[in-house]
Amino acid sequence: MKVKEIYNFLNELSPFELQEKWDNSGLLVGNLEDELKEVYISLDLDVEVLENAQPNSLIITHHPLIFSPLRRINYDSYATKLLRELIKKDIALISMHTNFDKTHLNKYVAQTILGLDIEDSDEYITYANVNKNFDLFQKEIEKKLNLKQSKAVKCDETVKRVALVTGAGMSMINEINADCFLTGDIKYHDAMEASLRKISLIDIGHYESEHHFSPLILGLCEKYLKKNELKAIITASKNPFMFH
Amino acid sequence: MKVKEIYNFLNELSPFELQEKWDNSGLLVGNLEDELKEVYISLDLDVEVLENAQPNSLIITHHPLIFSPLRRINYDSYATKLLRELIKKDIALISMHTNFDKTHLNKYVAQTILGLDIEDSDEYITYANVNKNFDLFQKEIEKKLNLKQSKAVKCDETVKRVALVTGAGMSMINEINADCFLTGDIKYHDAMEASLRKISLIDIGHYESEHHFSPLILGLCEKYLKKNELKAIITASKNPFMFH
Amino acid sequence: MKVKEIYNFLNELSPFELQEKWDNSGLLVGNLEDELKEVYISLDLDVEVLENAQPNSLIITHHPLIFSPLRRINYDSYATKLLRELIKKDIALISMHTNFDKTHLNKYVAQTILGLDIEDSDEYITYANVNKNFDLFQKEIEKKLNLKQSKAVKCDETVKRVALVTGAGMSMINEINADCFLTGDIKYHDAMEASLRKISLIDIGHYESEHHFSPLILGLCEKYLKKNELKAIITASKNPFMFH
Amino acid sequence: MKVKEIYNFLNELSPFELQEKWDNSGLLVGNLEDELKEVYISLDLDVEVLENAQPNSLIITHHPLIFSPLRRINYDSYATKLLRELIKKDIALISMHTNFDKTHLNKYVAQTILGLDIEDSDEYITYANVNKNFDLFQKEIEKKLNLKQSKAVKCDETVKRVALVTGAGMSMINEINADCFLTGDIKYHDAMEASLRKISLIDIGHYESEHHFSPLILGLCEKYLKKNELKAIITASKNPFMFH
Amino acid sequence: MKVKEIYNFLNELSPFELQEKWDNSGLLVGNLEDELKEVYISLDLDVEVLENAQPNSLIITHHPLIFSPLRRINYDSYATKLLRELIKKDIALISMHTNFDKTHLNKYVAQTILGLDIEDSDEYITYANVNKNFDLFQKEIEKKLNLKQSKAVKCDETVKRVALVTGAGMSMINEINADCFLTGDIKYHDAMEASLRKISLIDIGHYESEHHFSPLILGLCEKYLKKNELKAIITASKNPFMFH
Amino acid sequence: MKVKEIYNFLNELSPFELQEKWDNSGLLVGNLEDELKEVYISLDLDVEVLENAQPNSLIITHHPLIFSPLRRINYDSYATKLLRELIKKDIALISMHTNFDKTHLNKYVAQTILGLDIEDSDEYITYANVNKNFDLFQKEIEKKLNLKQSKAVKCDETVKRVALVTGAGMSMINEINADCFLTGDIKYHDAMEASLRKISLIDIGHYESEHHFSPLILGLCEKYLKKNELKAIITASKNPFMFH
Repeated sequence: MKVKEIYNFLNELSPFELQEKWDNSGLLVGNLEDELKEVYISLDLDVEVLENAQPNSLIITHHPLIFSPLRRINYDSYATKLLRELIKKDIALISMHTNFDKTHLNKYVAQTILGLDIEDSDEYITYANVNKNFDLFQKEIEKKLNLKQSKAVKCDETVKRVALVTGAGMSMINEINADCFLTGDIKYHDAMEASLRKISLIDIGHYESEHHFSPLILGLCEKYLKKNELKAIITASKNPFMFH
Repeated sequence: MKVKEIYNFLNELSPFELQEKWDNSGLLVGNLEDELKEVYISLDLDVEVLENAQPNSLIITHHPLIFSPLRRINYDSYATKLLRELIKKDIALISMHTNFDKTHLNKYVAQTILGLDIEDSDEYITYANVNKNFDLFQKEIEKKLNLKQSKAVKCDETVKRVALVTGAGMSMINEINADCFLTGDIKYHDAMEASLRKISLIDIGHYESEHHFSPLILGLCEKYLKKNELKAIITASKNPFMFH
Repeated sequence: MKVKEIYNFLNELSPFELQEKWDNSGLLVGNLEDELKEVYISLDLDVEVLENAQPNSLIITHHPLIFSPLRRINYDSYATKLLRELIKKDIALISMHTNFDKTHLNKYVAQTILGLDIEDSDEYITYANVNKNFDLFQKEIEKKLNLKQSKAVKCDETVKRVALVTGAGMSMINEINADCFLTGDIKYHDAMEASLRKISLIDIGHYESEHHFSPLILGLCEKYLKKNELKAIITASKNPFMFH
Repeated sequence: MKVKEIYNFLNELSPFELQEKWDNSGLLVGNLEDELKEVYISLDLDVEVLENAQPNSLIITHHPLIFSPLRRINYDSYATKLLRELIKKDIALISMHTNFDKTHLNKYVAQTILGLDIEDSDEYITYANVNKNFDLFQKEIEKKLNLKQSKAVKCDETVKRVALVTGAGMSMINEINADCFLTGDIKYHDAMEASLRKISLIDIGHYESEHHFSPLILGLCEKYLKKNELKAIITASKNPFMFH
Repeated sequence: MKVKEIYNFLNELSPFELQEKWDNSGLLVGNLEDELKEVYISLDLDVEVLENAQPNSLIITHHPLIFSPLRRINYDSYATKLLRELIKKDIALISMHTNFDKTHLNKYVAQTILGLDIEDSDEYITYANVNKNFDLFQKEIEKKLNLKQSKAVKCDETVKRVALVTGAGMSMINEINADCFLTGDIKYHDAMEASLRKISLIDIGHYESEHHFSPLILGLCEKYLKKNELKAIITASKNPFMFH
Repeated sequence: MKVKEIYNFLNELSPFELQEKWDNSGLLVGNLEDELKEVYISLDLDVEVLENAQPNSLIITHHPLIFSPLRRINYDSYATKLLRELIKKDIALISMHTNFDKTHLNKYVAQTILGLDIEDSDEYITYANVNKNFDLFQKEIEKKLNLKQSKAVKCDETVKRVALVTGAGMSMINEINADCFLTGDIKYHDAMEASLRKISLIDIGHYESEHHFSPLILGLCEKYLKKNELKAIITASKNPFMFH
């Protein structure tokens, strides 16, 4: 099977042209005509993912390996170190980032992982009615996402309407129309801003809220790959953080 | 005493022209000719800080209230809500941000708060030799900064040379010349990047690493203010995050 | 009555989204949820307008108070001085500038104030056939606008077709399709340019051609405000120029 | 005599490299190797100036003919109409604008035309102590500049320290350190701004304050040209405005 | 006949609004109201073309005389030297560049000059099936275009599908979907790029592939001009290169 | 020997910081700590150069492989195809482009290859007095550079003063102070421009004028490499053009 066949399948599933201007989703490494023997799925690349992958395979990730275009390849940064390994093992890389956030990931995490009743949603933000005690709701979220640490801004004892953006969504604070916002990678100034606006926050972790990408993609591709006598394998990248 | 007198004193202590281009340190609210009756010091503004401050006073903060220039003042954001309170109470605001990072804050936290032996330093980064077990060093740091949570990327069992940037310093990763980097607001992709580069990280908190601004400024101004029959009062802004 | 109710009424009358990119029409100071007790109308803000306005009121002006976004509020400029007074008295400010020029003001001045027969018009320019002696036409215009001084560029003894832009319209000279152009704030180089192009000019004053904004808005809002038991009051800003 | 000889003389008198970035002073039309038979001096070009000039001559103006670079030469604008005449008559054009403002014009008008005692000056602004009644001072200025009309903003009965910028100088309002500012082409919003800042204004006319360029240049070049057996002739452009 | 009449005719033939943003097609010199006595056609302007043209005429060229907007007209560059001659002789200039490439020129050269069977084409690129020996095809092309020199990159012995862009088309290499590309002004790095991509190149000359503009335009205008009692004359500019 | 040792040697020979802003000279592929076994020198990379190079070696080229930063590595362009081969064979790449033009290459070609007496030179342009018949001079140049084809613009029968820029130098036409200019990759519009300015041109070929890079670098490095027990090998890239 050629890379272009699965590229086309993925493009129908979640069109790459839906990606944001600053994004770099698509076939980042490898050629559309390459033959592939295995398909791996992971939130991100890391050293272990690449060590475990067979040569002449394809890896599908959520986050693009390359954001800032490369003028020098010196093997001293995340992108250039892993690029070398991909090339050496003839592994192709397709990333499905903001196009997939819009078409699948955000709603999947809200509904299937967090069990929220989706009320409405725009491109990146999913809304649900909750009407629960804040502390209980926070505990519930932590449990469902298996969060090792708890970080929150609590503006009220009750959560009425919740907004969800997986990954790092605080740049969307101006559009949030809810009293509680769930997202990851919340910084101190974001918390100050939300606190003044009386919007509660629960930090759901960037990794913890998005590693569900892998089983979701697996489910969506499985049948198609099987027909083509291929198997997708989840080789999950690890959370780089230790907590205690 | 007029605002301009203390403005000039602060400008000699840590010249405002040292600030970065994107920064907005200086007299942000109020007029140089205003008479002031009290001086308050805080890492940031929040509602409580303003409630506790007397009219016709001056507040000195680390972080500028206004970053994005204001085209509309609708009292629905952090900057415009607090701007209204400042104006209503005739309170002036001076912020000492990147100029003060360069001249005082970073070295003070390294030496006085963390007890590190400073080896060398550039504008924002302070370096120290450590040569300790990573876990022990991490515990030590947590204790000294009173961190409620611990988040780290551990690339080696030993910490040899440590780099410190208070606040949120991960954009400086390319310049770090150490095997362990202490800074706050570390995001997931920052951790992936550092992990591949074999640079360990300990998240020291944005608030936790910078609220030492207040006693530091107090010490530097006390004598001068006393001579002018004024007293500086620390009215610390609160960390918006709850942890458990 | 809340600010947002009258904001919505004005937005239907003359949609704010019609404004130019460089303009800043809309709710510039105050919050949509503020309760208002009085409504004032003025071409611009000045110190007297603000002294005469009651607290908890709304002022509607033609020109936006804020053009250049504000990074510092030091009470030493037109915008920051008056912003302080607005905030201190809890007065909201809505400006209706280029959107209102397009939908109402220009045609109103041409027809109702100057008594011209409008022939056609594009967004900002209103055209009328005149066919009069230049000197007589100039005198007529001066009388109708109550101009204290007369400044003109005369390229022909007769005015055939006239173009009108209230305020300062000389940047539109390339689009003028007439032998005489009426606008305000005409500068020396504008006059040189028009003179070479054989387009006569009559300076109709920026203030003198636009202070008709107030009675026009008053007429358009009166019925609506009455229904809501409010009265709009014209508290006209003054022309800062003295002539003799 | 070649154009380059007089170009070099003027460049020593008032170096062209002193001009502002947005300016276009220098040899705008013609070639440095052209032979010239006559030298004309004028504030600006207009149709009469060009009709009266001999072929194979040079015109020295204050204002550059070309500001916006030309992509099309259609003889329908000030610059392209007059460019055609210059080329047809083999007339070269040198403009001495912001370089000459800085080195000569501003101080000359202050001292020689207005009879002010210059106290100090920066690049464009000349300051003088006045200490006179505003109305008397205004009358004096009008007489010395032969102003046909009087337009002013009066913030105080007395003028203490005056600032002068010939031409159109209102964009420098932030730098003015005086209680009265003399400049030309004052627009309505400029007057509102100055009025709030308590800076009085007297509009000295763009043409009226700068046509002194011609005798000033004449005096500076006369001796040099005579030595080269050339005579400079003032063929003054006319003020396009009529006043009554 | 006025310039605007033939301008309108040409605009219907090949709308000027189809030109690229960076292009400058249209009436570059002269006024729409000018009367014209002769019409000349040439790929470009040069000294001889202008010497041979009658005053009060119009020249139609393919390439615009002015690309970089002019701030100074010093008769020391191609554009300013020839601009002077145009103005002195009252000759108007219309250029039909990228609009005409799109509507006519490229397809005309492919079909009528080179005798290719056009298979399909996008805006600038014309495709044809060839299936010939490379060396024979190259000889054929040289003969039909009367090329004095032969420069090529040969990646295969056979040419299957050919792409053609007249003038200098190498910036379109990313869009070429053929095994052989015919265009002019091929630079060394272009050749390296094509060679690695296995796309053969034959340099067809910028002048040699585009001077067919003149007879093509002549044919398209002849009837219309005749009706208006005008005759178009080809006064071809010369190829500046000598080859041996 | 490590890459950084030879990098430092080259940096002393011709400092990389002298390169132009748009250039990308330096270590483009590979890490400073890599051990290298062989050193190859070539004007450019091509497939054969890479096939003949040993793994774990270094190639020094004149032209940078990467100009436009890479967002995707799809092996379908010059840069990405050859990047893959470099990485697969662990070959490092250092390019010495505009820094080396300035310090060595241009003068070397003028003096040693063309036998010109250098009169003076600025950063990129070398001048020499010639005083020869144009046709004879052109033949001489062709012979010394072994040019297969001859392309020239001849404005005069005699060449007095010649300017030389190796590679593609026509963008410097405004600075040329000579009656004949030697450079490569001359395009049609360049020739038109030069022809009007009466500057003769002889196209000396981009490849033909710059492949002397290899022996020049070899001579400069030989002694240093020998001391370090390494040998530099010229594996010249080929001219992609065929001429006949």
